[in-house]
Amino acid sequence: MTLTQFNCWVAEIRDDRTRGASELARRALELLAEAARTLPAVDAMELRVRLLALAAELSAARPSMAPIQNLLWRWREGLTPPADSNLAVARDLAAKRAEASIAVSRRAVTDCATHAARLLGPGRAVMTHSLSSTVIEVCRLLKDDGLRMIVTEARPLGEGRQLAERLSAWRVPTTYITDAQMGLFVAQADAVLVGADSVLVDGAVVNKAGTYPLALAARDWGVPFYVCCESFKWRGPDHPPPELEEMAPAELGTPDWPGVTVRNVYFDRTPARLVSAWIDETGVRWPPAGP
Amino acid sequence: MTLTQFNCWVAEIRDDRTRGASELARRALELLAEAARTLPAVDAMELRVRLLALAAELSAARPSMAPIQNLLWRWREGLTPPADSNLAVARDLAAKRAEASIAVSRRAVTDCATHAARLLGPGRAVMTHSLSSTVIEVCRLLKDDGLRMIVTEARPLGEGRQLAERLSAWRVPTTYITDAQMGLFVAQADAVLVGADSVLVDGAVVNKAGTYPLALAARDWGVPFYVCCESFKWRGPDHPPPELEEMAPAELGTPDWPGVTVRNVYFDRTPARLVSAWIDETGVRWPPAGP
Repeated sequence: MTLTQFNCWVAEIRDDRTRGASELARRALELLAEAARTLPAVDAMELRVRLLALAAELSAARPSMAPIQNLLWRWREGLTPPADSNLAVARDLAAKRAEASIAVSRRAVTDCATHAARLLGPGRAVMTHSLSSTVIEVCRLLKDDGLRMIVTEARPLGEGRQLAERLSAWRVPTTYITDAQMGLFVAQADAVLVGADSVLVDGAVVNKAGTYPLALAARDWGVPFYVCCESFKWRGPDHPPPELEEMAPAELGTPDWPGVTVRNVYFDRTPARLVSAWIDETGVRWPPAGP
Repeated sequence: MTLTQFNCWVAEIRDDRTRGASELARRALELLAEAARTLPAVDAMELRVRLLALAAELSAARPSMAPIQNLLWRWREGLTPPADSNLAVARDLAAKRAEASIAVSRRAVTDCATHAARLLGPGRAVMTHSLSSTVIEVCRLLKDDGLRMIVTEARPLGEGRQLAERLSAWRVPTTYITDAQMGLFVAQADAVLVGADSVLVDGAVVNKAGTYPLALAARDWGVPFYVCCESFKWRGPDHPPPELEEMAPAELGTPDWPGVTVRNVYFDRTPARLVSAWIDETGVRWPPAGP
């Protein structure tokens, strides 16, 4: 591996604008498995040092995405090879461990979606915002069960288009709207279901910008607002709250107006008080009963 | 005037996507003045019948826009010519009356903006959504007084771009964001100031879709939410609440997905409880004190 290769791996995670946090976390684990098998190293110790450096860079590349930090941390915790292991054994252990984590993450998404689908039940109109692989899995589970979806476009990149395309292929009756219409259409939904990039210790949800006003509108209309994501998305109490990532202003496609600052913050923070329930691979977590 | 001309006038008001409700109301009055001077008619009575028919069509063309209905109603109320008037006198009266109403409307916008500018005061960060001629006038009044603006793009047509361009020309420091980021940036505003297409009898505000979630976010952050519009935008108690106008789905620029319905409702309804104050040409109206 050259420095170029190392940087390419990090750049792939940093610059990806289409995959959600879970998918990117699994991709980061794939890259670690590849690195474990191919990184030049004279012994197991050097391999370890290099892999940890890569894992640290991959984690730092997407600070809003807790599963990258959590899954990579899990992987690293199990990494310490026996002192006498040789390089080949160390390579194999590190790679296999990464692959096992990928399988665990995939299973968590499926289990999480199963719980969410059961909670929603058949014949529902469900509104979502942006693209979540967990929400897609819920749609797949409910697609022949009378599901109807309301999908926002999710500017600037329009992840909602990908979702609408998928729902169209599945013949799920779908309403597609601008983000600005969310307050109008949430009233027609039986529930809102969103994924998350991170969930903070107190249950606040970091997800694609627009999630917070959608949660406010859902609350205002008395529509339940569910967050559906694997437990890897929860940040530990020792994690600082993530900085909300900001991307290139050019994605908004505006001209260059002197004195005008174009902002493109990808994520917003929905406080826990607006969340009706959190769903993860272990089941549904309701908020504590109020005072 | 031919039937074609009549239809063209109505179509101009119906199909306009760039002018706000006040501007369009004044344009409708200009068309009535032109019609008063040029409509073929054998006598004052026939002229009156034809003008009333045109006014009714113009009013119905934009049901969400109260000032068109209100200003045309005002104009119509003063229209009855003396029984003995001849055609030339009737033409002149009807046209002059329309022109007087235009002046009244212009003056109301200016007075309204003056009250709003005084309420806001110097050195404020003000957030708005979509494009309002009254809000533009407020910006003009405060542009050399330390005003900073936060402007949403306002999909699908992006009226926020026009506003950002104007603010740039005035050297007002401006932050430009997607509609989806409104919940993030309202926290940085000292106040939200929006115009309205209509205000209902109970004080609920019909304005460009996205206004309602912005009002929710403003309330959640404790940021005052002001609605600034002339009294002509208030609907009378006998007016039914307007149907929220829906425009061509093609404006969203999506492909044709089978089973996906693209919706493009232009307006949403912000309940009065989310409005901190209504500002019109007579001053600031605060909500009644709570129980």
